[in-house]
Amino acid sequence: MLLLAIVLAAVSPAQAAHDYRVAHEQEILAEFTGLLAIPNLASDTANIEKNANAIAAMFSRRGANVQLLRLDGAPPLVYATLSAANAKTTMAFYAHYDGQPVDPAQWQTPPWQPVLKNDGGDPRIYARSASDDKAPIIAMLAALDAMRAARMAPSVNLKFMFEGEEEAGSPHLASYFDRYPKELAADAWLLCDGPVHQSRHMQLYFGARGVADLEMTVYGPARALHSGHYGNWAPNPIVTLTHLIDTMRDTDGRILIDGFYDDVTPLTPAERDALAAIPNIDDDLKRELALGRTEGAGKPLNELILQPALNLRGFAGGHVGNQASNTISTEARASIDFRLVPAQTPEKLRERVERHIASRNFFIVPDTPDATTRMAHPNVVKLEWGPGYPAARTSMDLPVSRRVAAVIRDATGSAPYLLPSLGGSVPMYLFQRNGTAVIGFPIVNHDNNQHAANENVRLKNLWEGIEMFTALFTNLR
Amino acid sequence: MLLLAIVLAAVSPAQAAHDYRVAHEQEILAEFTGLLAIPNLASDTANIEKNANAIAAMFSRRGANVQLLRLDGAPPLVYATLSAANAKTTMAFYAHYDGQPVDPAQWQTPPWQPVLKNDGGDPRIYARSASDDKAPIIAMLAALDAMRAARMAPSVNLKFMFEGEEEAGSPHLASYFDRYPKELAADAWLLCDGPVHQSRHMQLYFGARGVADLEMTVYGPARALHSGHYGNWAPNPIVTLTHLIDTMRDTDGRILIDGFYDDVTPLTPAERDALAAIPNIDDDLKRELALGRTEGAGKPLNELILQPALNLRGFAGGHVGNQASNTISTEARASIDFRLVPAQTPEKLRERVERHIASRNFFIVPDTPDATTRMAHPNVVKLEWGPGYPAARTSMDLPVSRRVAAVIRDATGSAPYLLPSLGGSVPMYLFQRNGTAVIGFPIVNHDNNQHAANENVRLKNLWEGIEMFTALFTNLR
Repeated sequence: MLLLAIVLAAVSPAQAAHDYRVAHEQEILAEFTGLLAIPNLASDTANIEKNANAIAAMFSRRGANVQLLRLDGAPPLVYATLSAANAKTTMAFYAHYDGQPVDPAQWQTPPWQPVLKNDGGDPRIYARSASDDKAPIIAMLAALDAMRAARMAPSVNLKFMFEGEEEAGSPHLASYFDRYPKELAADAWLLCDGPVHQSRHMQLYFGARGVADLEMTVYGPARALHSGHYGNWAPNPIVTLTHLIDTMRDTDGRILIDGFYDDVTPLTPAERDALAAIPNIDDDLKRELALGRTEGAGKPLNELILQPALNLRGFAGGHVGNQASNTISTEARASIDFRLVPAQTPEKLRERVERHIASRNFFIVPDTPDATTRMAHPNVVKLEWGPGYPAARTSMDLPVSRRVAAVIRDATGSAPYLLPSLGGSVPMYLFQRNGTAVIGFPIVNHDNNQHAANENVRLKNLWEGIEMFTALFTNLR
Repeated sequence: MLLLAIVLAAVSPAQAAHDYRVAHEQEILAEFTGLLAIPNLASDTANIEKNANAIAAMFSRRGANVQLLRLDGAPPLVYATLSAANAKTTMAFYAHYDGQPVDPAQWQTPPWQPVLKNDGGDPRIYARSASDDKAPIIAMLAALDAMRAARMAPSVNLKFMFEGEEEAGSPHLASYFDRYPKELAADAWLLCDGPVHQSRHMQLYFGARGVADLEMTVYGPARALHSGHYGNWAPNPIVTLTHLIDTMRDTDGRILIDGFYDDVTPLTPAERDALAAIPNIDDDLKRELALGRTEGAGKPLNELILQPALNLRGFAGGHVGNQASNTISTEARASIDFRLVPAQTPEKLRERVERHIASRNFFIVPDTPDATTRMAHPNVVKLEWGPGYPAARTSMDLPVSRRVAAVIRDATGSAPYLLPSLGGSVPMYLFQRNGTAVIGFPIVNHDNNQHAANENVRLKNLWEGIEMFTALFTNLR
């Protein structure tokens, strides 16, 4: 027995996970594709329940204590725990099992019929949520299997929490934290969402940008008009809207709204140093994306995604191409997503944006205005705000931050890149309650068509993910 | 016989037409709805032929010499003549028998199933082309019937020409004038298209604005990107396009393209006087259209439609509302119609617009650019120009101009408004070859949903049209 223990201890957790995976690839993929075959729109209650039950059963089979935490009208949280003997530290791992809406016409294969493609020797699984965000769940499960096979025990108490409406904006996550404070307490959270660096190097992120959505609708004549008979006289709502947008943002990404940058917390020296250590891949990306210029006055992508952003998601008015007719439209509409950084909040954002728009001679209404309202003001704009949430950031200098980075470094052989913040938005601020450390730990490839058609995950990323979870579960303190 | 002739002569042509119409309304409407029931998209060759044959047969039945003038690949021109004894003057009348495309989902009743509705005591016929532009054809036919019933002969040689692809942009009309110069020669043309004044008062127009269409497409990243991960760095094509548009036109309708107004011929004193005689109905229109402001620095509609115009027909990029997602789109597109006035031409327009856009740091391409082209320039724009045509104008001071106005004044009891130009575009320049006078003579109501769903014509307008055609056919010199 003593001999056996010594032999086992001589194998690193990552190596043990590697050996287990090589011997069990078919079982792992069978479990993965089974999970991917369950449709997972947050609004599809029946299938969301199936997903939750399937994941709960998988963790039960690994000996975890499992519950479905519930709130009325919300997909359940899958909650699982595994205790470690004598451990005082509890590390919690988050992922989500719902996925983005799909447009099946855009998919080469149906979104919920997972397919393994060789892809020129870099095989990938294609399915909705193959990357975002079921891959980490399967990697955690396989890591637990590898630990059992190698007789390795967790070094800390493990909690797992899987959400079923992240892609719908996590509308109940705050309520879940309010309702289940004991279950959702931990010394630190690891959020397993998002992609690794574009160079395929591992990265950890210590924050995320906040987000807020805004729909703006402006109005022209009450009925569509012949542009020959009324053009130059009846206001064209498309032009009204292009000019309003141009008062809000320039072509270089700079936001022109008064006071917009006032609340932005500058990066710390440590964060600046961490950024500098990340290789600049902008030229490769420019080629990949066929870009003739970038926004941000030539600053690198890494730095720019730490700034707040105003993105035009869409603009619709009248018709173009073969559908175009010589008319003045009744309205035009634009959809914006704002990205927020510490210490911006959706509330302050809204106040500043509305003050800006009002100062440009627009009367703001929350609902579609009637004729009297339209006639009473030179310009009327309907503003519809999504709920949104603020940014969050954890210090890279905390012991737990350093420990997670060291475990990954030991498992992969090189230090992960440390991002002060992810460019994208995940509701890290909820996990940060009471100052809890929250670290983002992504495992999937960046070129995964996340949120789009033909979403996929590289098997290499999945395999490395298993090794890293095994290392984290057994080497965190 | 002498007594009879005297009695007949005592009845004015308009009165004779009125009396005839009152006695024959059902027959007139039966012929009208029969014609409206034939679908009439210019591209629908089989039905376009049916329309042409039906109209030809109607004129044959009135004793006219009728031919279908043909060019390969084009709908036929219906061409009919009626000679007057000893007349040296030939007056030609134009209308078109094709109609705008339809979106049946928007129609309360099917577009080619004509329906008579009482409309609160102001009855109307609803059907595609009820106004635009079959109403004048039926009114001319009924005028010929009224003349026969009253034993009135035409005072000038009459020519009728009906086009079958006006709503498709009259792509073959120039070739028809080239091919059939003898048939299409006249001392003056009356173009029977467009609406009467919004006050329901008769009007004549002595010109029309030219038109040119432009589709502009600008480019972002080669594939749609997550706005969180790439926003602030990858150029947003919607923003690129809003800023380009805003360099071209302000919110007051003023066109900002260098030299755009250089070729504009100022109005003559006579044209200014005629304009001043037209009542200003702008306040009524503003109420009808629920407008809180107008473009053009407060100038009246009548005056503004004599200026060139840049109208945004459409803008499309990304998605809005429920379809919106947090992405940076690959492209954005805008559709513009320009209105031209004397002496602007599409060629000069194109040169000035392209010089302007190029000066704003855009590389112009005629086709979708490849990756190499996109990477070689900060901004690439695809410009697709429609064929377009120039403006045209006839002097109000010509004898024929005065005579037409006098006949209408005598028939209706009040002088028609005289518009130097229609705001809309009809290819008057083609009719103006060799300096031929061309006068627009509309009979239909302005609130006819022309080009849109639920197109209609007021019966009162149709009835008055019959009276005026009878007066013109018998009183022109």
